[in-house]
Amino acid sequence: MHVITLLTDFGTEDAYAASMKGVILNLHPKAVIVDITHEVPPQDILQASFLLGSCYSYFPKGTVHITVVDPGVGSERRILCVKTPHAIFLAPDNGVLTSVLAREKSYEIVEVASAAYFLKDTSFTFHGRDQFAPLAAHLSKKPRDFNKLGLRVEEYEKATWPEPEIGTQSVTGQILFGDRFGNLITNIENSHLKKFTLPPADIQAGSVKVKQWVRYYAEAPKGTPIGLVNSEGYVEIAVTEQNAKDVLGLCPGDPVVLSWQAPHTAD
Amino acid sequence: MHVITLLTDFGTEDAYAASMKGVILNLHPKAVIVDITHEVPPQDILQASFLLGSCYSYFPKGTVHITVVDPGVGSERRILCVKTPHAIFLAPDNGVLTSVLAREKSYEIVEVASAAYFLKDTSFTFHGRDQFAPLAAHLSKKPRDFNKLGLRVEEYEKATWPEPEIGTQSVTGQILFGDRFGNLITNIENSHLKKFTLPPADIQAGSVKVKQWVRYYAEAPKGTPIGLVNSEGYVEIAVTEQNAKDVLGLCPGDPVVLSWQAPHTAD
Amino acid sequence: MHVITLLTDFGTEDAYAASMKGVILNLHPKAVIVDITHEVPPQDILQASFLLGSCYSYFPKGTVHITVVDPGVGSERRILCVKTPHAIFLAPDNGVLTSVLAREKSYEIVEVASAAYFLKDTSFTFHGRDQFAPLAAHLSKKPRDFNKLGLRVEEYEKATWPEPEIGTQSVTGQILFGDRFGNLITNIENSHLKKFTLPPADIQAGSVKVKQWVRYYAEAPKGTPIGLVNSEGYVEIAVTEQNAKDVLGLCPGDPVVLSWQAPHTAD
Repeated sequence: MHVITLLTDFGTEDAYAASMKGVILNLHPKAVIVDITHEVPPQDILQASFLLGSCYSYFPKGTVHITVVDPGVGSERRILCVKTPHAIFLAPDNGVLTSVLAREKSYEIVEVASAAYFLKDTSFTFHGRDQFAPLAAHLSKKPRDFNKLGLRVEEYEKATWPEPEIGTQSVTGQILFGDRFGNLITNIENSHLKKFTLPPADIQAGSVKVKQWVRYYAEAPKGTPIGLVNSEGYVEIAVTEQNAKDVLGLCPGDPVVLSWQAPHTAD
Repeated sequence: MHVITLLTDFGTEDAYAASMKGVILNLHPKAVIVDITHEVPPQDILQASFLLGSCYSYFPKGTVHITVVDPGVGSERRILCVKTPHAIFLAPDNGVLTSVLAREKSYEIVEVASAAYFLKDTSFTFHGRDQFAPLAAHLSKKPRDFNKLGLRVEEYEKATWPEPEIGTQSVTGQILFGDRFGNLITNIENSHLKKFTLPPADIQAGSVKVKQWVRYYAEAPKGTPIGLVNSEGYVEIAVTEQNAKDVLGLCPGDPVVLSWQAPHTAD
Repeated sequence: MHVITLLTDFGTEDAYAASMKGVILNLHPKAVIVDITHEVPPQDILQASFLLGSCYSYFPKGTVHITVVDPGVGSERRILCVKTPHAIFLAPDNGVLTSVLAREKSYEIVEVASAAYFLKDTSFTFHGRDQFAPLAAHLSKKPRDFNKLGLRVEEYEKATWPEPEIGTQSVTGQILFGDRFGNLITNIENSHLKKFTLPPADIQAGSVKVKQWVRYYAEAPKGTPIGLVNSEGYVEIAVTEQNAKDVLGLCPGDPVVLSWQAPHTAD
């Protein structure tokens, strides 16, 4: 298998992603290129990290994942290459791989010091095309050359959203962002809910009292504000068949509190 | 041939479509995946049906078409699998296949009852990734397993726009939606015009008198409101080299009347 | 290699690009289809030409490039086929290939007169699907049939932005358009700067005094208005980690002046 994925903030209205694909196919005609997305908000490292973390594990063994959200392009910032038992990841050293490294147990990280696999004339402003794309094409064909790229890295940049606060009878998190449906994804994960029994007794999102805890959207009537654990394991605030972001007027950063009632003490 | 198409309302800013592609390529490395579109307005079953109907017949024999516009995901709504002599279609039973079933003469429909081809851990909210994608990958490789999916279905959901009214000297329809160019597609099809001779004597769209009936846009000078039968066989209201939706101020639901003059009676 | 690229103004919300892909894969199952972009502003021939020029040279030898920005579809406008030592280009004769023909030294151009490779029932309004797609599929498989398409063409349409004015101590150009990042691309190219020494002493963009000339964005602190030669060889006005189009309030057509100080005369 020769899958190479692209995750960038380049958009699709310009030809930037296409140039990367041209470079890849020129060097590696059998590559199967998959766009994860090119619509990361410009320079939004946290969202890029989240999106990569949500999908990479579904790709075939041997996939090379390129992530180029790279405000530091051209500067001294390093390019990292991460090898796991399942895949290879290429990205600038700016935290965009945090979600992957948090999920993986076994990996090696090197700094890409060799320019051997770059295009000959590298621009200062488009390393996606001139460095990441040819390097990914090469590693997709010859993954063993991972060892020729450069020295092992122990320290690297991390980028994380704040952790939710886990109390005795509540979990307090926040809204991270809305997806295309306006579903509001929070920083509260399945793993933060282990000591509680679902559903929570009360769900508060900003000033909105969320009415119902569900397993799936259609479990509540159209228009109902709901909470659920979504398909990536995150608590999500949604409105059945409507756009929760618009309808509820909530924004990234707004608090979300799940709470459970105190057990009645026997007295 | 191993083409699998995707038609969803997932958008391209999140990683949902990418997760589906990862699942497909993991199970079926030779699959050729084509995006029809992921930008169906959320939960807009009619538009998804229209778009699928407009393009599916151009794909190679053996193509598997996945349509996931699925407000009922996770509920008791069924997943249907339709087999025609040319292709296989997977979709929730919510009417999204209406345009295909209206065009095809010979087909079998089954309800997908077997979970044999789903991912092991199926979420409640992302059946595109966990059920449709792996099932499509399997059917693309082994189309005969259509027979193992479940029982034959006779009754299923339909979703249709209203039919135009065909009078003695007029056809009255309505605007369904605008495309990217702002061309306004109506529910009047070629087949509704059989008893009339083109061009009509008069074309009225909402409050706009449409000046000219043409075969192609450039037949009228720039800025002219025109009517034509478009490349999918629908009557369309357009403005040459401009955005008719913006310029004419028309909306989905606005009436469109094509009329022919009464033959002069001999008196 | 069997790469076919698509560059259109069809958008991705409708199924137009998908219909083209269906046609191509039906005729040429091994084709590898790459979207350059479908988001060219409707009928914007200059931008389509610019985007094609910026990326085509990165694709493998033998690639067939389809460009369909075609306000004259259905009319008498010709379809051109250009063959270079490296690639084949199909486009309406409306200037959209200007950027390619300006870069290439050796090429042949024919008018597509034969309908032999078109779909049988060609619509008046969707030649992308009915003529360009099947022709590209055929030429990708049998590039020698270029010679069967029609007669050699000597005269054809051109579309160019105005040339910058090169003075003794200044170059005066203009902003062409903004990319997804809001970086403002000008008509001043590397080749216009040959007789000057970089950096210029002064950079003026509309009413904005641009502070710094850089090699890459992160060379200046966040928020700094900067000028640079971008990865395609064009002078660009940007703002580090911000959207220059929004922040500076500049538009296509606004003048950009790079100036150098007069050498002090000995007196």
